[in-house]
Amino acid sequence: MRRLVLGAPLPTYAAGHQTLRKRMALPIFASDPLSSVAYAPQELLLILAGGGLAFIGYTPWIAAAVILLLTVVVVSYRQLVRAYPSGGGAYTVAAKNLGESASLIVASALTVDYVLTVAVSVASGVDNVISAFPALHEWRVEFAIVCVALLVTINLRGVAESSKAFALPTYLFIGSIGVMIVVGAFRAATGNLPLAESAGYTLQHHDLARAALAFLLLRAFASGCSALTGVEAIANGVQAFKPPKARNAQATLVAMGAVAVSLFAGVTYLALKTHVLYTANACDLHGFANCDTKAQRSVMAQIAASVFGGHHAVGFYAVQATTALVLFLAANTAFNGFPLLGSVLAHDRYAPKALLARGDRLVFSNGVIVLGTAAAILLLAFRANLNLLIQMYIIGVFVSFTLGQFGMVVHWTRQLRRGDTVHRTTRALHVFRAINFVGAATTGVVLVIVTITKFTHGAWVVFAIMPVLWLLMFRVNRYYGAVADQVAPDAVTRFGSAGDYAVVLVHTVNKPTLKALDYAIAADHKRLAAVHVAAEPELTESLRAAWRALEIHVPLTVLESPFRDVSSPLVEHLERDRTLHGSEVVSVYIPFYVYGHWWEGFLHNRKSRRVRHRLQLCPGVAVVLVPWLLDSSQSLYTRPARPLPGLERRGLTALPASRKITTQRRFHRPIQR
Amino acid sequence: MRRLVLGAPLPTYAAGHQTLRKRMALPIFASDPLSSVAYAPQELLLILAGGGLAFIGYTPWIAAAVILLLTVVVVSYRQLVRAYPSGGGAYTVAAKNLGESASLIVASALTVDYVLTVAVSVASGVDNVISAFPALHEWRVEFAIVCVALLVTINLRGVAESSKAFALPTYLFIGSIGVMIVVGAFRAATGNLPLAESAGYTLQHHDLARAALAFLLLRAFASGCSALTGVEAIANGVQAFKPPKARNAQATLVAMGAVAVSLFAGVTYLALKTHVLYTANACDLHGFANCDTKAQRSVMAQIAASVFGGHHAVGFYAVQATTALVLFLAANTAFNGFPLLGSVLAHDRYAPKALLARGDRLVFSNGVIVLGTAAAILLLAFRANLNLLIQMYIIGVFVSFTLGQFGMVVHWTRQLRRGDTVHRTTRALHVFRAINFVGAATTGVVLVIVTITKFTHGAWVVFAIMPVLWLLMFRVNRYYGAVADQVAPDAVTRFGSAGDYAVVLVHTVNKPTLKALDYAIAADHKRLAAVHVAAEPELTESLRAAWRALEIHVPLTVLESPFRDVSSPLVEHLERDRTLHGSEVVSVYIPFYVYGHWWEGFLHNRKSRRVRHRLQLCPGVAVVLVPWLLDSSQSLYTRPARPLPGLERRGLTALPASRKITTQRRFHRPIQR
Repeated sequence: MRRLVLGAPLPTYAAGHQTLRKRMALPIFASDPLSSVAYAPQELLLILAGGGLAFIGYTPWIAAAVILLLTVVVVSYRQLVRAYPSGGGAYTVAAKNLGESASLIVASALTVDYVLTVAVSVASGVDNVISAFPALHEWRVEFAIVCVALLVTINLRGVAESSKAFALPTYLFIGSIGVMIVVGAFRAATGNLPLAESAGYTLQHHDLARAALAFLLLRAFASGCSALTGVEAIANGVQAFKPPKARNAQATLVAMGAVAVSLFAGVTYLALKTHVLYTANACDLHGFANCDTKAQRSVMAQIAASVFGGHHAVGFYAVQATTALVLFLAANTAFNGFPLLGSVLAHDRYAPKALLARGDRLVFSNGVIVLGTAAAILLLAFRANLNLLIQMYIIGVFVSFTLGQFGMVVHWTRQLRRGDTVHRTTRALHVFRAINFVGAATTGVVLVIVTITKFTHGAWVVFAIMPVLWLLMFRVNRYYGAVADQVAPDAVTRFGSAGDYAVVLVHTVNKPTLKALDYAIAADHKRLAAVHVAAEPELTESLRAAWRALEIHVPLTVLESPFRDVSSPLVEHLERDRTLHGSEVVSVYIPFYVYGHWWEGFLHNRKSRRVRHRLQLCPGVAVVLVPWLLDSSQSLYTRPARPLPGLERRGLTALPASRKITTQRRFHRPIQR
Repeated sequence: MRRLVLGAPLPTYAAGHQTLRKRMALPIFASDPLSSVAYAPQELLLILAGGGLAFIGYTPWIAAAVILLLTVVVVSYRQLVRAYPSGGGAYTVAAKNLGESASLIVASALTVDYVLTVAVSVASGVDNVISAFPALHEWRVEFAIVCVALLVTINLRGVAESSKAFALPTYLFIGSIGVMIVVGAFRAATGNLPLAESAGYTLQHHDLARAALAFLLLRAFASGCSALTGVEAIANGVQAFKPPKARNAQATLVAMGAVAVSLFAGVTYLALKTHVLYTANACDLHGFANCDTKAQRSVMAQIAASVFGGHHAVGFYAVQATTALVLFLAANTAFNGFPLLGSVLAHDRYAPKALLARGDRLVFSNGVIVLGTAAAILLLAFRANLNLLIQMYIIGVFVSFTLGQFGMVVHWTRQLRRGDTVHRTTRALHVFRAINFVGAATTGVVLVIVTITKFTHGAWVVFAIMPVLWLLMFRVNRYYGAVADQVAPDAVTRFGSAGDYAVVLVHTVNKPTLKALDYAIAADHKRLAAVHVAAEPELTESLRAAWRALEIHVPLTVLESPFRDVSSPLVEHLERDRTLHGSEVVSVYIPFYVYGHWWEGFLHNRKSRRVRHRLQLCPGVAVVLVPWLLDSSQSLYTRPARPLPGLERRGLTALPASRKITTQRRFHRPIQR
């Protein structure tokens, strides 16, 4: 069962870099951008419907603008991959060309975006499931939260993104939507395409002033731009591609762009042909019964029902299932993309160094939990309402687009100034710069439009959170700088400790204590004492008796502890010793248990950890940890390495956790003389 | 500000036991039992109202039965305090007299009870706040969750229960309810007491069969029994009293019982005089407008309004405020009582040993979080509905009452059999046994009544959870037994390691590394090597250069790391060395940072911790931790000790965390030769 869910354990010797073929990279990186086809046409229609039926006629123009923008961004990002094949995307470009402040703006925008990718994708996925099973409408929020919890669990357990289970749904989605578009277009051409279920409803008619009209069209465009989310994923993950990395990433980017444009255009076309209506508030649809308690079916669901012949057709269920699946996959990509961004930030000292390290499960777990919790809070706060969540979504995307492309313009300009024409002609550099300038200008204009049209609808939240994240990363960087200054070797500090005193901390006579004592004897310290703190008087007596019975020659020093506390008497003893023997190095031997189950941690070890923390503050003391392996620790030797989130996007595989130790397990038990 | 919230830091030398005067112990232990006056009369009335107006007339009889039961339990518990002054209550009595199974039933019942104390008290507190501010009704669940979160935060930060802030509200509650009863009785005697706002409503009339009538009365009695919750708190916390501990605890118990009886009788009397109606479903009250969206005011609120002249009278607000406050305090007692039970269970090896240890903040934090989360889940699942939550509440209470009293009967019988009449006459022992037998029989009968009348109304949840807890504690006990067997010294295992090789793990040349090297040199090992794992090639070159520049004479061994992993090459190196030099003890010196802020943990140390975990599994290796104190660690020396939840109930105070170290801070810096 476990193998079925997680895949076979990685062979422990097969470590190192693992790269992705294009046909695997496409589904992994493209589930996020392609899945936006599920909500972008709907959001576009929704805003237009707010103005009345007449406005739906503007749909083709706005869709065309979105497609043009998508093309510009894809072409522009091709340049970015070419120039920065090491990956890192807009952040790296901004950092190298625009300086610290701009790069941190991009980093905080991307962070916000990852949270929203999870929230929006899950909300849309839930919408599409509800469209197929309307009875679930009542449990919308709970359902969404359960989905996020599931994603968190999957990523905490560890799963390889490159497994076929992750690639298949994206291809199925492309396939099912493709079939829907082809069948729909054929039926439309033969005059045989039924209208959508909402085509019969009427809309409130609004008389809008010319200014309001323009604003409405801009808002519709801004909402349609949600089709562009996720395009940057490939540029961030170039390292995951098979060589030639940059070339392959570019090809995949173009393929992804072509598919995204086709699907977006096809779905929008069918939405118009089937006369789908979709409104922010279901009760604005005159004729829609029980609008208070029933949910509108998603645009995708209505189209699928029209094309394939109703809500019980196989085709309808296929489209809904693959749409929901690819949306959950898109949410999952955020859990992999976030650590990728984190590792780049960590390299530049803007995020915890541990994000760089391979195999620190704890740190990655924290990241997964933070991301999931933030998304869950958003889903709770906005009742898993896609239309509300999407208002916040694309701000971050366009901030990073604009700054990334602008950074590229600076990049090419610098190359031109340096006259770096060894690899490329001046003419080519001019063309490249022009492409990126168009990209920067276009996305910049869109960012302004999006901000203006969405600010009061919820986008202000993003503008409130981004400065906080910015400051956090800035402070982390300065903290690392301060620590580096503190520990840098200097001419003033001189080392040269003397003295060698060892203390074995004895709580009771058991094998772990005897082992610690044995190690201390073997290390042949100049002075050695066994020290017991008499926190429990009855224990002390039995200890003295056992000490005599075992004929241990190391003297047993018993320290009084009036307050039943272990560390204070020990610290005082060490301080007394220090006044007698001068400043010396004291090695305190502390035995501790090694165990194999996480829950055993709740049952052991706390006391010795507390003593250790106290001794850290004691001058001249080093703590020697002598492990005792409980039987349960056996499982540690054979535990297979599980992949961490984001590892594959960085072109890495899981660490070989248990190489070579396997055979030597019993060796660690006390050695016979 | 911090001082205002948490109180002045404890003087670091004032460690040891701290005991409570009766006048402080009463409010601390009695907020739980006394606060039940806020809901017990209401629940009693609610069940009777379910049968129709005519049934309200049975109220005095049922209230009298509850008061009789309360008296029996208090008298019976007086005996328990007398016999087991060490505290522990029903659990200890059951463990000593009825064996393991019974004691674990009590322990799991009490655990369930602590969770329900939080949930029920918070739900009732929220009810009373809403009665004063009806607009909050919409946010009932959110409000309740915020209250639980607040309690968790307070207890995570640490706060002394014996501070005046905790004693005052209980006295204010007793005072304000007392005044209400006196004023109400006077106005009733003078024929001047207005009826409650619900007195004008009518109830659905039910024609009940005789059997249903009897069942309804039993259910009303069972609900009224919620007045008895919390009575056991004093018996659990005898150690917290000033000597003579048992005598003082008994006196406090009796005082608490007398106050509880008076308040319960008084509130029930006023409820009858003001003709309060309260139903499970607000819409059963004919005449109550907007019953779908509005909440009924609590019985306490309706009485207070009648007595003090309306919903804007000062007296009304005073009663509601003190009632809500004492209920939140009652919820807080669970956070202190739970660790107390935990420490007794830990002593008997049924719970993590760490619960015994004083000052392990992490463990107590986990307990606080678990308790808070469980209560929050209950509040969420039952929409903070007091009537639903209370169905589950008193099962646990009466399980522990019955088994505790039954254990006392066995206790006195054993004393009689042993003829232990040194301290007491045989006659006295017979009387004692009779008292406890009456207690056991009565509470046993009530337990049966409560189970039968409430099982289908939600009590089954408790019966589902208790076996799980029982098994958990049983397994923990058996686990500790198995570990003790594993580590017990035996004649077969022989110690006698030889060889003394030391390795200093070098990542880069900085002060912490130089200090570790310095300590290793001082310890004068037979062989010493500095080992660097070349995970990052560019770092290795600069390290070699620095090594030469500083003229360090310890040889630097560089290990290749093709997979950029630190631990595997190190482990392989140690194994190679072992094959060359035979089984020997290897001390691996690892420098690490000591810092003063919790958040610095996210920015440091992960890599060395991972290496350490890997080395634990390596035969013959002991890890030597050499601390480097960052500037921020300064705060560790002067940090005041904060009290842990439950500490005071065990008659303890916070540990003196920073005794004596304060003056020697700078000493730990590298010593000048």
